[in-house]
Amino acid sequence: MQTVTTVAALRDALAEARKFNRSVGFVPTMGFLHEGHLSLVEASRTRCDVTVVSIFVNPTQFGPKEDHNIYPRDFPRDEKLCRDAGVDIVFAPDADEVYPPGFESFVEAVELEKPLCGALRPGHFRGVATVVCKLFNMVQPHIAFFGQKDLQQCAVVRRMTLDLNLPIEIVAMPTVREQDGLAMSSRNRYLSPGERWRALAISRGLFAAEAEFRAGERRVEKLSAIASRHFENVDRLQYAEFVDAGTLRPATSPLSRPAAFCVAAYVGSTRLIDNVIMSPDVGA
Amino acid sequence: MQTVTTVAALRDALAEARKFNRSVGFVPTMGFLHEGHLSLVEASRTRCDVTVVSIFVNPTQFGPKEDHNIYPRDFPRDEKLCRDAGVDIVFAPDADEVYPPGFESFVEAVELEKPLCGALRPGHFRGVATVVCKLFNMVQPHIAFFGQKDLQQCAVVRRMTLDLNLPIEIVAMPTVREQDGLAMSSRNRYLSPGERWRALAISRGLFAAEAEFRAGERRVEKLSAIASRHFENVDRLQYAEFVDAGTLRPATSPLSRPAAFCVAAYVGSTRLIDNVIMSPDVGA
Repeated sequence: MQTVTTVAALRDALAEARKFNRSVGFVPTMGFLHEGHLSLVEASRTRCDVTVVSIFVNPTQFGPKEDHNIYPRDFPRDEKLCRDAGVDIVFAPDADEVYPPGFESFVEAVELEKPLCGALRPGHFRGVATVVCKLFNMVQPHIAFFGQKDLQQCAVVRRMTLDLNLPIEIVAMPTVREQDGLAMSSRNRYLSPGERWRALAISRGLFAAEAEFRAGERRVEKLSAIASRHFENVDRLQYAEFVDAGTLRPATSPLSRPAAFCVAAYVGSTRLIDNVIMSPDVGA
Repeated sequence: MQTVTTVAALRDALAEARKFNRSVGFVPTMGFLHEGHLSLVEASRTRCDVTVVSIFVNPTQFGPKEDHNIYPRDFPRDEKLCRDAGVDIVFAPDADEVYPPGFESFVEAVELEKPLCGALRPGHFRGVATVVCKLFNMVQPHIAFFGQKDLQQCAVVRRMTLDLNLPIEIVAMPTVREQDGLAMSSRNRYLSPGERWRALAISRGLFAAEAEFRAGERRVEKLSAIASRHFENVDRLQYAEFVDAGTLRPATSPLSRPAAFCVAAYVGSTRLIDNVIMSPDVGA
């Protein structure tokens, strides 16, 4: 495994793969890797000849009052996890390499940035779309892998990739969970034992709604009500919405197309998100 | 020469060049080609193995009250000019191919879009940056050629290319002029004979200032005053500004770094732009 920190070194590291037309898989991350990330690495290794993981805590996707500075980092651990997982290239640039002086260009998906987290974190998805576009142009992968936990991020990246004609396939992989159901996230590290326990309300609410959906319930208000009993246990619910899984527009009730039930909630001072997708075609 | 109208056909047409690592030069245009465009084709043919010209009147860079619908078009003539000039591939998509339903992602260079034409044509450079980014990803050229007449466009494209890490060299070629000095532009076609004559005031003003600069004058106010006598003959001067040739910020007087003297003016109902670059290092 090779670790590189500059775009030039990354391109050098990929030159041979390019020359021999090897397929390149890419897993962009903010580091502090967990099994969710590693499932993306595994998917990339299954489908591509060369796997690149980027580790970059992207400042432009954090708001001024958000947790950019305290976001958990452990590069030696990440590097070891990547090596053990069979990653070929780790790309770990610093902020100046990604945003040199004079940088001022941004990419946005205008409509997909508006609902859900976009309404609560102004500029967040502009930062995401911009850094992912940049990383895509640096790595020039054939396939890029993202986690479904970040559903709106997946939608924005998919849209941006299509709209800007980037010749890259976007694959969203299922959310990986702790044994008790909590969606894996680097931010889980912030939770105290008590908070860790209260955080379970999120996945429990989602699963309760999903069970009812599987039993045949299609009315959004009923499914929401079932989940709400669990969501009462978080400290502050930001949203719990059924949206069309593709457009992220409010889902119509009764559900007749694939919908995502998306939640954002604070547990203590930690903001967590999660979702489940309910597809009427395969359900019931 | 091959003419293609879809992204898929374009990629097919370029597949062989890509396979044998031939260099690809790209000249994006809005058609109604003139000698300015053909000088870009010639530059591309000199430096690259394969030359692609796109012909697309991009709707997103026109304001609602601008001339998108009447912008001059003559595809058969353009195609013949391209063939005669030795172009390998003409890419002439329709608007739906470039902007399919659901399209909503945009690229912008925040600061460079603000001055000069950007202040008068809101959204214009966002449309330019977006379509050029898209075309770059469709063609994936090694070098792209633009005319210096569209100085702010060159600056925005250069910035966007650098900021989004597109591995493409941007080359700006000198403005090609009619024998009497008028900068070539597809919009010159709009001018009546009387307007065509009055339009000369623009290049005459710029040349008068340039002559004085060559004679040693460095004070912006003096150079501007000399040009103003000519600019009085246009119907409406929108701006005549000295800006830093790289950042487009107002140039400091006396000039000590390369500056662009940029003009936008209406002659009749036709909006024309032009500029000259004055470089203190080589001047005087």
